[in-house]
Amino acid sequence: MSAAEIMAALFFHELRFDPKDPQHPEADRFVLSKGHAAPILYAAWAAAGAFPREHLLTLRKITSDLEGHPMPRLPFVDVATGSLGQGLCAAVGIALNARRISSDYRTYALLGDGESAEGSVWEAGDVAANLALDNLCAITDVNGLGQSRPTQWDHHLDEFGRRWTAFGWHVVVIDGHDLKAILAALDEARGTKGRPTMIVAGTLKGKGVKLCEGKEGWHGRALKKGAETDQAIAELEAQYVQPVGPAPAIPKPASRRTDSAPPDLVKAFPAPSYKKGDQVATREAYGTALAAIGALDPRIVALDADVKNSTFSEKFEKKFPDRFYEMFIAEQVMIGTAMGLASRGAVPFPSTFACFLSRASDFIRMAGISNLNVKLAGSHAGVSIGEDGPSQMALEDLATMRAVPDCTVFYPCEAVSTERLVALAASIRGPVYMRTSRPKTEVLYGPDETFVAGGSKTLRQSSKDAVTVVAAGVTVFEALKAHDALAKEGIAIRVIDAYCVQPIDRDGLVAAGRATGGKFVTVEDHYAHGGLGDAVSEATWDQGFRVKRLAVREIPRSGAPDELIDKYGLSARAIADAVRQIVKA
Amino acid sequence: MSAAEIMAALFFHELRFDPKDPQHPEADRFVLSKGHAAPILYAAWAAAGAFPREHLLTLRKITSDLEGHPMPRLPFVDVATGSLGQGLCAAVGIALNARRISSDYRTYALLGDGESAEGSVWEAGDVAANLALDNLCAITDVNGLGQSRPTQWDHHLDEFGRRWTAFGWHVVVIDGHDLKAILAALDEARGTKGRPTMIVAGTLKGKGVKLCEGKEGWHGRALKKGAETDQAIAELEAQYVQPVGPAPAIPKPASRRTDSAPPDLVKAFPAPSYKKGDQVATREAYGTALAAIGALDPRIVALDADVKNSTFSEKFEKKFPDRFYEMFIAEQVMIGTAMGLASRGAVPFPSTFACFLSRASDFIRMAGISNLNVKLAGSHAGVSIGEDGPSQMALEDLATMRAVPDCTVFYPCEAVSTERLVALAASIRGPVYMRTSRPKTEVLYGPDETFVAGGSKTLRQSSKDAVTVVAAGVTVFEALKAHDALAKEGIAIRVIDAYCVQPIDRDGLVAAGRATGGKFVTVEDHYAHGGLGDAVSEATWDQGFRVKRLAVREIPRSGAPDELIDKYGLSARAIADAVRQIVKA
Repeated sequence: MSAAEIMAALFFHELRFDPKDPQHPEADRFVLSKGHAAPILYAAWAAAGAFPREHLLTLRKITSDLEGHPMPRLPFVDVATGSLGQGLCAAVGIALNARRISSDYRTYALLGDGESAEGSVWEAGDVAANLALDNLCAITDVNGLGQSRPTQWDHHLDEFGRRWTAFGWHVVVIDGHDLKAILAALDEARGTKGRPTMIVAGTLKGKGVKLCEGKEGWHGRALKKGAETDQAIAELEAQYVQPVGPAPAIPKPASRRTDSAPPDLVKAFPAPSYKKGDQVATREAYGTALAAIGALDPRIVALDADVKNSTFSEKFEKKFPDRFYEMFIAEQVMIGTAMGLASRGAVPFPSTFACFLSRASDFIRMAGISNLNVKLAGSHAGVSIGEDGPSQMALEDLATMRAVPDCTVFYPCEAVSTERLVALAASIRGPVYMRTSRPKTEVLYGPDETFVAGGSKTLRQSSKDAVTVVAAGVTVFEALKAHDALAKEGIAIRVIDAYCVQPIDRDGLVAAGRATGGKFVTVEDHYAHGGLGDAVSEATWDQGFRVKRLAVREIPRSGAPDELIDKYGLSARAIADAVRQIVKA
Repeated sequence: MSAAEIMAALFFHELRFDPKDPQHPEADRFVLSKGHAAPILYAAWAAAGAFPREHLLTLRKITSDLEGHPMPRLPFVDVATGSLGQGLCAAVGIALNARRISSDYRTYALLGDGESAEGSVWEAGDVAANLALDNLCAITDVNGLGQSRPTQWDHHLDEFGRRWTAFGWHVVVIDGHDLKAILAALDEARGTKGRPTMIVAGTLKGKGVKLCEGKEGWHGRALKKGAETDQAIAELEAQYVQPVGPAPAIPKPASRRTDSAPPDLVKAFPAPSYKKGDQVATREAYGTALAAIGALDPRIVALDADVKNSTFSEKFEKKFPDRFYEMFIAEQVMIGTAMGLASRGAVPFPSTFACFLSRASDFIRMAGISNLNVKLAGSHAGVSIGEDGPSQMALEDLATMRAVPDCTVFYPCEAVSTERLVALAASIRGPVYMRTSRPKTEVLYGPDETFVAGGSKTLRQSSKDAVTVVAAGVTVFEALKAHDALAKEGIAIRVIDAYCVQPIDRDGLVAAGRATGGKFVTVEDHYAHGGLGDAVSEATWDQGFRVKRLAVREIPRSGAPDELIDKYGLSARAIADAVRQIVKA
């Protein structure tokens, strides 16, 4: 109820949209960042005619898409909200998309006051001001009450005004229950050029109902059926003003332009120009491929967090500066912006060091929940980065990304597969994670080799293989060395390059396991938990295989890459030792 | 070199410390938030006499604790840095600890300008101002250059000043190469009451060496041996001013007070007051136990992100308001503050909904790297929360927490085990994660039952058991129901309560597996990846067991808890079906 007048002003005066076609590409967008206020979002869309009002009574039932918090299962929800502080980040991406497609649609976001404590809100504040997103208007519903107590700012609207002004926004402070003031503020926002606008709206939670107006203890609590509800409805009806004349028509969006069909990137992708035996880092091949698909498909955009010279996303920037978005050192808004862009048809590739994607884990979680078409790229995986030490080493990213349902996880070991998988990633509908490494590695595949989601490559095999070694990334080369060393001792092993960790190649693994007595060694530059070994084991659970996991099992330290690979038990020596033990047992 | 004068002023004038006893409990603290500047930190401590200067030449070698970024393996490092934007959060906790132990030690943090884009910095800004931490002084080294390009703010010092003023800090803007100005600013900070101070210091990267001063392309790059280095040293020596008189003595900290030995919490913990069969939510038992250990040990503190009425940490607040820190909706600074507190001897229990701990994943990663004594508590795990929907459901937290080496992971199913495990968590040295659930569950254990890290409880067993069902949390009760249903069909199953997911009870599992033909069903209110099933499988990898994982395998939706438990295949029905299939096969 704190946001009733704000929502009325937005939905029945300000927003240009077609309730029957919420995904119209030129319609104004609305993001309910304070997702726990979902009922008012559903009520507004129902009142606008998107669906019958009776459906509102299915709220939170298992059969209904009117869930506890907004989900993109609903056609009028672009990104899932309910994890606070994310909506403005997504709105930045949605506003940026208007620039990308040269549309004049505007983007609106409604924030809670409590969620303004989330740092991600201020990351969005910086980025929106840097990018001069004057097509973005946010409103903060300052009702002064959090879930468990008053917020730290209560109704001190100036606390919000000072902050947003300092972050470069145009600020309008209003009484959020004064409809004329809201409309005037929205007008002012529309007329403001060169920077986004924040409307700071002072409101009362439970406005209009004495029992709960401005009172604590009502967060997420429904009025009791009977006396409480009857009294509340009577109070609200007494305040209801009969409209004079017919209801205003909802302004319509601009006429829809026809999008060109996206190309088949996997087919169109130019053959990589490496020769077998070349030494190329997968992170560099990633940058090369990103620039190549950028030339084929205008939907491709790239986002950086000030490491473009390490992830090689700068190769994309050099070719397509207008589709390259520098977020500076702010991973949450980088992913949030990518979510917003993806929700409007772009194919965003946000990239940074893989370990720093963990800064945005909750955003990645919500991108997964929204099943958004975001292509995450994390470089510098594992101890093989060497001297920079554990704070820069991603050793849990496979676990995190595998725990995003429907997220495809690629972990190529060399340049050709990396390039081909970048094109494939862009072609897949839904989230993809691409893990790359710092060191240069040998090109193993010819330029026309093909790779598929759920595939793997068997690099060494014979009819005498005693153990299957499953490797990915830098450990593939250790496995190949172990193969050669063991061959000299008369021990044959099968070596598999598991370039796709999720979905993993169950059929290939089962076949290999059956051919090698059900004996596996997995080896990964990652912690033992939730990574490649667990993926192999889970996919083949019904086979009774024995899967020995070689992985990092302690906090690593600085050192030369080869020293660390050996110290933490991922080297050819460690693999050969594990195989020998298994063969002996 | 941008921070050379700042570090000189801090280490040889401002800080009160004993280079030979860096962990002195009353010494002033210094956090290098811009951890990539590690060489100057090492140089300062060496110059102060903490270790011989020659050791500096071991920088980044595998045999040296002088790693690429600061690690607490070094006695003068409290928390690992190198993931930007975290140091100020830790400094908040360190400053708060001074208040906890009634010490007048002061806390200093040196930030980079680039990292000010991280939202966590502004979360720390809010919290430090809210808590009126006037014993905290931060310095931002505004050298204008990020890793890959100039920062968005270049040398516009006013951009920093405006923001920090808006966030309620006292701000001093200075030339960061003017030693007198630095000393005056530090004086001013010391004299400022009621709020923290931010010193905004304009500097030049590479100051004093023409080749790189103020120039791009030198991030993390060393001067070449030979001409480059010789020239740089010559330039620096030419600028060197011979000190007049003897070097100033480093001010010493206050005399050390004797800490009382912490109690044995596991022994001292009062027996829980439940009766078998009572219905109590584990999250509520968590709150009860937290208040109980608070009474036993003054080191226990609790941190909240505005959900204390849901996590029941409010039970602690009511008894110990001075040791309860409200961080509002800002999970990163909540964990960062806990890291700082833990580094100085407190035993912090930060708690929120388990899914929102993912907001602080990178902080948890760094807490793990620092091996800090932080006790994370996540409530409302899994689909069993019901109608609030997927944005509020933690379904990846076990994967994330298992991928923190040395992190103990507890997942109790009922109130007695929850209470006992809270006391155990406080007693363990190192990170612990406690997963609790929303629904009320039946008390299964007597008040004197004991629980250990790495333990499990076998709840049902017979000599005829055909399958071992491993459950944890809410699924334990589904497993018990499945046991009874299957018994009627003449199928006996063993039921294990895996209350400790990490380390998991390998011996117990191996014994159960051998007794049940190597057949397992695991069932968890979590995604299939990286959770309980993977833990069981990995621990018993060498046994050739078959571990069928029942887990959530798609994005869930809103609904009643029981409906969801069944829909996503975790119910007694689903367990019984899985057992029947395995028995038949």
